[in-house]
Amino acid sequence: MLYAVIMAGGAGTRFWPASRAALPKQLLALTGERTMLQQTWDRVQGLVPVQRVLVVTNRELSARVAEQLPALPSASLLGEPCKRDTGPCTGLAAAVLARRDPDATLLMLPADHVIRQRAAFHAAVSHAVDLIDADPTRIVTFGIRPSYAAESFGYIQRGDPLACGTDRPPTFHARSFREKPKAEVARAYWAAGDYYWNSGIFVWKAATILAALARNEPEMFGHLERIAAQLGSPRFPDVLEREFAALAGKSIDYAVLEHYNNRVVIEAPFDWDDAGSWQAMTRLHPVDEQGNTVVGGRLLTKDSSGCVVHCNPEHLVVTLGLRDCIVVQTPDATLVANKHDEEAVRQVVHELKERGWEAYL
Amino acid sequence: MLYAVIMAGGAGTRFWPASRAALPKQLLALTGERTMLQQTWDRVQGLVPVQRVLVVTNRELSARVAEQLPALPSASLLGEPCKRDTGPCTGLAAAVLARRDPDATLLMLPADHVIRQRAAFHAAVSHAVDLIDADPTRIVTFGIRPSYAAESFGYIQRGDPLACGTDRPPTFHARSFREKPKAEVARAYWAAGDYYWNSGIFVWKAATILAALARNEPEMFGHLERIAAQLGSPRFPDVLEREFAALAGKSIDYAVLEHYNNRVVIEAPFDWDDAGSWQAMTRLHPVDEQGNTVVGGRLLTKDSSGCVVHCNPEHLVVTLGLRDCIVVQTPDATLVANKHDEEAVRQVVHELKERGWEAYL
Repeated sequence: MLYAVIMAGGAGTRFWPASRAALPKQLLALTGERTMLQQTWDRVQGLVPVQRVLVVTNRELSARVAEQLPALPSASLLGEPCKRDTGPCTGLAAAVLARRDPDATLLMLPADHVIRQRAAFHAAVSHAVDLIDADPTRIVTFGIRPSYAAESFGYIQRGDPLACGTDRPPTFHARSFREKPKAEVARAYWAAGDYYWNSGIFVWKAATILAALARNEPEMFGHLERIAAQLGSPRFPDVLEREFAALAGKSIDYAVLEHYNNRVVIEAPFDWDDAGSWQAMTRLHPVDEQGNTVVGGRLLTKDSSGCVVHCNPEHLVVTLGLRDCIVVQTPDATLVANKHDEEAVRQVVHELKERGWEAYL
Repeated sequence: MLYAVIMAGGAGTRFWPASRAALPKQLLALTGERTMLQQTWDRVQGLVPVQRVLVVTNRELSARVAEQLPALPSASLLGEPCKRDTGPCTGLAAAVLARRDPDATLLMLPADHVIRQRAAFHAAVSHAVDLIDADPTRIVTFGIRPSYAAESFGYIQRGDPLACGTDRPPTFHARSFREKPKAEVARAYWAAGDYYWNSGIFVWKAATILAALARNEPEMFGHLERIAAQLGSPRFPDVLEREFAALAGKSIDYAVLEHYNNRVVIEAPFDWDDAGSWQAMTRLHPVDEQGNTVVGGRLLTKDSSGCVVHCNPEHLVVTLGLRDCIVVQTPDATLVANKHDEEAVRQVVHELKERGWEAYL
């Protein structure tokens, strides 16, 4: 049976000060009325019943996640006691769900992406499930046709096509997984034409990923198994705390995907945006004639262009003679950044920590 | 006897959104712990007793002014029912004080200038009073030695020197008053070397300015006399309301100063800043190595220079890759402006009115 696993543990530091440690990007309504987590939840409705959705997040965020997803059974919310990258998060979900259903198929979904074509998304997931039903050892990924030579995404190189019928999206063996490339390499991928952006959305059997982890990461696998063994027991919280902390952080790409043989990539037949930065908001919101975008609040511009503004609903931001800037207003902190310096927001968050200005984190 | 008249009716729109209709620049602490009005009040202490200070402001601001100046007798606070420029304001102060003391000498002080050398200021005012004692029909002005070819000030051209003794600041007949000049003209004044900036601070007999108004502006004079005649009567508020509204707005420069013959200019022996714009704050606050200035709150900059930031005490502003910008944060409105577009702030205030966004004014 199919289960949806929503990965909602991201820090979202690139969206500071709108995104905070206690309220990161996926818990914000940056791209619509609903938060990105809620939109992800909405996206799986009709695909799996509520009882087969698992949400993995940070323990600190659990209460907020529960608030935002009132229909989520509390037993289906896993709070990681500390940050250990996507490997342990993914493995924990697999270990937990495999106990419940040894034949479980998992749809792994980041909680902070934007996909608006829900029907196409459902069809693509059904196709992935069919591919796994035909060969349960497959790992199925969704590749996004690149629209430019992005450096901020991982890439998947496609290999030979699979014959799936003309009513199915183009499907290929995945030849290789590539980490975020430098500019030059990104341009080469882009020119080559057989590379997709890695959407970070996967479908696999819990048993498949656990077997791969047992093989590639026996230590991680051991910790995860000891946690899953305590599911439902009163010792679970203590064991989770101890075993998870003892894990070495590693991405699932590095732990499994890059080495795995039986990988498939489906060319995504749905829209997809990782909404990875304030600049991405220009793709997800209306843009005025001067290229300014308002994510929230009120904007009055004079002689300004290419600006992205986010502020609280009743707040007014006025820009005068401003070019290509990001303005983010919150009640206690305001960011004004040149668009091209957006990456430095992460450094700011780091510096706030160093200065002990924790209140702003 | 000497009286101090503090003119505190300005709108301060150039300082929006920090400055609001209900809390304009002179009521803000932009240049120190005390508000500019309070600093002006402090400046006259030791020069005139509290009982001889008169504050003229807008009626809407009266309560705030009284709050900020708790030692000011309530009878010494005049609230204009509407805006009519500096002519009626000045004339009203003269008419009111002349009833109380026909020989009154008035020190006229804008409430929103910065002068830090109080002793030098007192000495200069004493000198002005001496000049008027010697010739009561004199109008005495204070000229500021220009430090650049400013377009934002009026100018006073000096004529022949007056022999006042070497212990007195340089003193001259004032040959002409000039309105704010265009760039080219400002450069010519600057090059000529015999022009001062008009500080807007004057000393004159109430009788002198009233006689000049009676001669040049008989209609205005009539309205002012009818108001002053009701001082202390229960009819005063109604008469003030009616007569003041019936006045034609006109600046005192245009109504009197430009035409008056017996004018003297003292070269100010004190520091002076009109604190007329956010850029002025770079002269009145510490500037960091990158040329950034914080007027209030906390600032964290990366790769930013030449910025002026004003925010609430606990608020954090972060700038990344920002050049020569003004950032002004308030709880309900934020301004981000290129320094060179600062003048457009007035247009913003106008546009907010047009849009009916009164809450932000």
